[in-house]
This record gives sequence, structure tokens and C-alpha cells, in this order.
Amino acid sequence: MDTLRRGKQSVLFPNRPAVTAWASAVGPKEGQGPLGPEFDLVAEDGRLGEKTWEQAETRLQQKAMELLMKKAGLEGGGPELVFSGDLLNQCVGSSFALRGTGFPALGLYGACSTMAEGLLLAGAAVNAGYVSNAAALSSSHFAAAERQYRFPLAYGGQRTPTAQWTVTGSGAVLVSARGEGPVLSAATVGTVEDKGITDANNMGAAMAWAACRSILVHLEDLGRGPEDYDRIVTGDLGSLGSAMLRELLAKDGLRLGDRLTDCGMLIFDPKTQDVHCGGSGAGCSAAVLAAELLPGLVSGRWKRLLFCGTGALLSPTTVQQKQSIPAVCHCVAIEH
Amino acid sequence: MDTLRRGKQSVLFPNRPAVTAWASAVGPKEGQGPLGPEFDLVAEDGRLGEKTWEQAETRLQQKAMELLMKKAGLEGGGPELVFSGDLLNQCVGSSFALRGTGFPALGLYGACSTMAEGLLLAGAAVNAGYVSNAAALSSSHFAAAERQYRFPLAYGGQRTPTAQWTVTGSGAVLVSARGEGPVLSAATVGTVEDKGITDANNMGAAMAWAACRSILVHLEDLGRGPEDYDRIVTGDLGSLGSAMLRELLAKDGLRLGDRLTDCGMLIFDPKTQDVHCGGSGAGCSAAVLAAELLPGLVSGRWKRLLFCGTGALLSPTTVQQKQSIPAVCHCVAIEH
Repeated sequence: MDTLRRGKQSVLFPNRPAVTAWASAVGPKEGQGPLGPEFDLVAEDGRLGEKTWEQAETRLQQKAMELLMKKAGLEGGGPELVFSGDLLNQCVGSSFALRGTGFPALGLYGACSTMAEGLLLAGAAVNAGYVSNAAALSSSHFAAAERQYRFPLAYGGQRTPTAQWTVTGSGAVLVSARGEGPVLSAATVGTVEDKGITDANNMGAAMAWAACRSILVHLEDLGRGPEDYDRIVTGDLGSLGSAMLRELLAKDGLRLGDRLTDCGMLIFDPKTQDVHCGGSGAGCSAAVLAAELLPGLVSGRWKRLLFCGTGALLSPTTVQQKQSIPAVCHCVAIEH
Repeated sequence: MDTLRRGKQSVLFPNRPAVTAWASAVGPKEGQGPLGPEFDLVAEDGRLGEKTWEQAETRLQQKAMELLMKKAGLEGGGPELVFSGDLLNQCVGSSFALRGTGFPALGLYGACSTMAEGLLLAGAAVNAGYVSNAAALSSSHFAAAERQYRFPLAYGGQRTPTAQWTVTGSGAVLVSARGEGPVLSAATVGTVEDKGITDANNMGAAMAWAACRSILVHLEDLGRGPEDYDRIVTGDLGSLGSAMLRELLAKDGLRLGDRLTDCGMLIFDPKTQDVHCGGSGAGCSAAVLAAELLPGLVSGRWKRLLFCGTGALLSPTTVQQKQSIPAVCHCVAIEH
């Protein structure tokens, strides 16, 4: 048995599992943003014909999966394995989306890092030969998240300047042993970091530390430098967290310049869309991966990306109990 | 690349990853039950010296991990990878237990099936050579679960006869490429089933369908029969759900007799401990696995077990919204 472990936290995928299909479904605000034309489906309203915000989130996941299967030619059967998760209590967005589908399903919790975690596990499962394909799926919904984490929308709560706007959206990707598409070459599993940040409206700051550590470990584990990637894309630190990550990396001598970007800063236009520090939510990096990053690799805009999912692992209960915010960051190297 | 897939939902682990260490930490009520002497740690009170029930649950996970590392001789370093999850909103029991440990960590959500899901993924990671060892960890806490899912304890809510009692406990296991211990030979990933059960106080019924389907698929995928296992152990259907599973399996011609048992029925004494249908919670099957099932394999009491983690994938929000209860069951074959 070969060991595929490299360094402390990283693994290699020598069998080159490929992302052979991807799909995204988002709400109207996301459709009005800079990536609007790139999403596969932009809902006319955030309810998607459902009675509740939570059911609307489930519907977004179902739409993303349906589009994925159509693009992948899997309508008859479906993926051999699905890794999925979301931000709702008990991850009900995912569980309800998958009920009755007959897809073998493993539930994840990684907050906004869920898509990176799912992509990592799907790549690992396909690379090892457990399945010939595996899907990763995640979602978030602005209105469901606001009332769960902060206030119901009707309350009209004022948002702080450091807040991020939870994306209404879902992304789904299919990793396959055969077929054309960007290849997953390696991944780094994050550690749970907590630097004592207690402001739940400044999650970017809490996550920046975790992102810094995982990116440094990834490069060290694999003997790589920033020049080995055309883009290092976090998801989702927002503008404040991203600036903080830039400073933290600079202290370690890493100056990433234009190489560093963030899904939360790509999905909304800060000038015209009042989102403060940018987008967030388990659907943000998932939708940006499917609408912007994977197509950019295929078109030749970039050759090698490091996709770094960042999650703030708090709950409303831990915030009320005055606990600080643990965070995690998982990295997946994608090449084409 | 060999395919390790067998049938629709199952995978093989030909490199025979072994469970080389295990540990459990539980509350006082569990300590008074039939497995009391078998747990590694029985807390004197359910708070474990913490201010809140949620922090007490985190402490249970930390205690189980500390005991696991001590038994495995990993105090200096720790496992190469941890899969963990729990029932608290946003899985904060796990995230807070792992912060600052430096362990590479992937978060799961599988409700009471979390330990089976973690064991399956740890086995898959070790069998594939990604890591030389991986831990699976989960927990639940009666008081934290009661106030999150039902009523705060001080309210004195009456429990229905079909209710199960959430176990205060945590279990941790280490799967390794080398070393002595019961071997993981195969696993079956469950599908999300929903047969329209809407009574959140009768989760055993909701989960029995999922357990029935996964057990049948497991046997069919691997060409095995019930006689290939000395015990088929669900976790946790409770007495009502277990009786229902027995009926469902009998309809398919499978009569399991004494072979079928349930972690929720093993952990408490129904005569002296007022728990209605038995134990439940992500800590129940985890603690029973570590205190009863793995030691029973090592002592020769059984040779082959099928460990079937069952999870009810509801949330209080979906119950209030009158939704039915999706459920999942993942199976892991363990031999010694």
C-alpha cells in the first residue's frame, strides 16, 4: 500500500480525479452581481415557490443537483456517492434535498468550507477507486441564515460594517475517474484554529488565521511556492478577512499580490450591492467554484488554482455563551 | 486503479485497516447502566465542571480523545486525521473539542449515525493509504439535546412513551494501517429515506426504514447473509424502532433473531432506568462501540459484527414546519 500522505496535513491524488461537471443555482441578488450571467440558474425570487426559506434552500440544492446530473449525463442513475452539507441547524438543507433520491450520501459540517471539504473527500474517494464518481454539494440562503444566526428579516436589524452577506445559492460538482475536466492533484486538511475573536459579525477575521495556517502548511507539505498557483482563492473571508490574510501571510514572507482572491469578493459588486464586506455562506464558494473558477480553468484563464474553503465554526449558542470563534480552512489544488 | 466498489452502495477495505484503540467517556446515568463498568470514564456529574451543557459535551469529547491517545500511545502527536460530529447546532461540540489541538479535522453531520460515518471514512482513508491512522469521534449530551430539540430541563416537560433518552457520552476510536485490533473489512453508505413519519418523539420508527434498506443493500452488495455476522447492531433505534426493523426485515424474508441488537437498548436498563424506548444520540452508539462491541470482538465473544449507525436527519425547525423525518443508516463490517 502506497502512502499518499505528504507532510503533516496533505495528501496526493496521483490517479488524477477530474471535475467533469459542475452546476450552480442562485437567488436574484446573486444574479444581479458580476457573475450573474455565469450561473446556470438564477431564481426569480428567493422563495423558489416554497413556503419557507429552509425549503427554498433545499430547492436550490435540488436544482443544482438536477443541473449537474443533466450536464454529466447521469439523469438515469445519479452519482455513486454524494458529500453534502449546509449551514442550517442539523444540515437540513442537504438532508431534505437528498431524501428519496437513492444517492448514497455522507453528510458534512464545515460551515463555509463545506464545498472544499466535499471536493477533497470526493477527490479522495475517486482517486482511491472506491467509486467511479462522487458529487460535492453545498448551499446557503440569506433569509434562512439571517433568522437562524441573527434576526428575522422583518425585524429590520442594522448590519455592522464588518458583516458579510450570506449568499442565496448552491453549487454542485462531479468528480470522476474518467472524463475530461480540471484535475484535483492534492489537498490539505485544515486544523481548527481559534485566535480569540468573539465578534460574530466579523467572521472574516476569525477565519483569516485558519486560512493563513492552511495555505502555509499546504505549500510546505508539498514543497510548493505561491508561484505554483495562478490563483489562491479563499472562500469566504470577505474584504476585511482577505486583507487580514494578506497581512498575516506577509509576516511569513509570502506576498501573494493579485494571486490572492476570495469568493466572497467575487460574487457581489461592492459599489452597487450593499453587502458590506462581501459574500459568505456555504453556497458562496460552491457557486463561485461552479460559475467562475472551474470555467476559468477550462478556458485557459488560469492553469492552477488553490481552492481554500474557510469555515467559521460558531453557533448562535456559543456566541450567546461568549465563546470565541473556531475556524478551519481546507485546500484543494485544481489544475487544467 | 482497482475499483473497491461492490454493488450499489458498498466498498471493500482489502488492506484490512484495524481499530487499534478506543475510548469512552459518559455521564453518571450511563455509568449506572448495564455497561457502567465498561466505560473508561464516568463523570461524577453531567456538567463536568463546565458552565454550560454545551461546554460539558465538548469536555466529554476532549476526555474521550485524551483517553484514546493515551491508549494508542499518541500523546506526543495525535492522530493524522480526525472525523467528528455531534448533534448540537453547527456541530459545536466537535469544533470546540478540536480547536487548538493541531489535528487535521473533517466535520461530519450524520445525527446518531455519526460514529458509523466516521468509522467508515476513517477506514476508507487508512485503507487507501492517505494516512497511517485516523480517528472517529462523536458525542451527545442529554441536557444540551433536550433544550435544543425539546424543552429546557427546568420546564419539566413530560416525555412520550415512544421517546428515547439522549445519551450523555462520547466515544472515540482509532483506525490504523498497522497494529492489532478488530479489522474493518467493508462498509455500506446509506441513502436518505423518508417514509412520512412526522412524530419527532418517535424517531426510531423513522430510522427503522433506513436501517432496513441499508442492511438489505449491504448483504446484497457483498453477497452475504445474516449468518455471516454474529451480531447486527443498530445505533440507535430503541426498542420500538428495533421491533419495527425486525418486522420490516421479516417481510423481506430475513429473520435475524438474537443476531439483531441495538446500542440504544444496551446502554440503559429499561427496568430500573426510566428511559422509555432506550438510549439515543450521537454519543450512544459511539460509547457502546468503544465499551461493549470492540471489547466483545477482542474477547472472542463475537467474530463478525455489522455496525449500523442510524440517524434521524430532522431539526426543530423542520418539525415546526410539519415536515416528515428523513433518516439514514451507514453500515461497517468489523471482524476479529
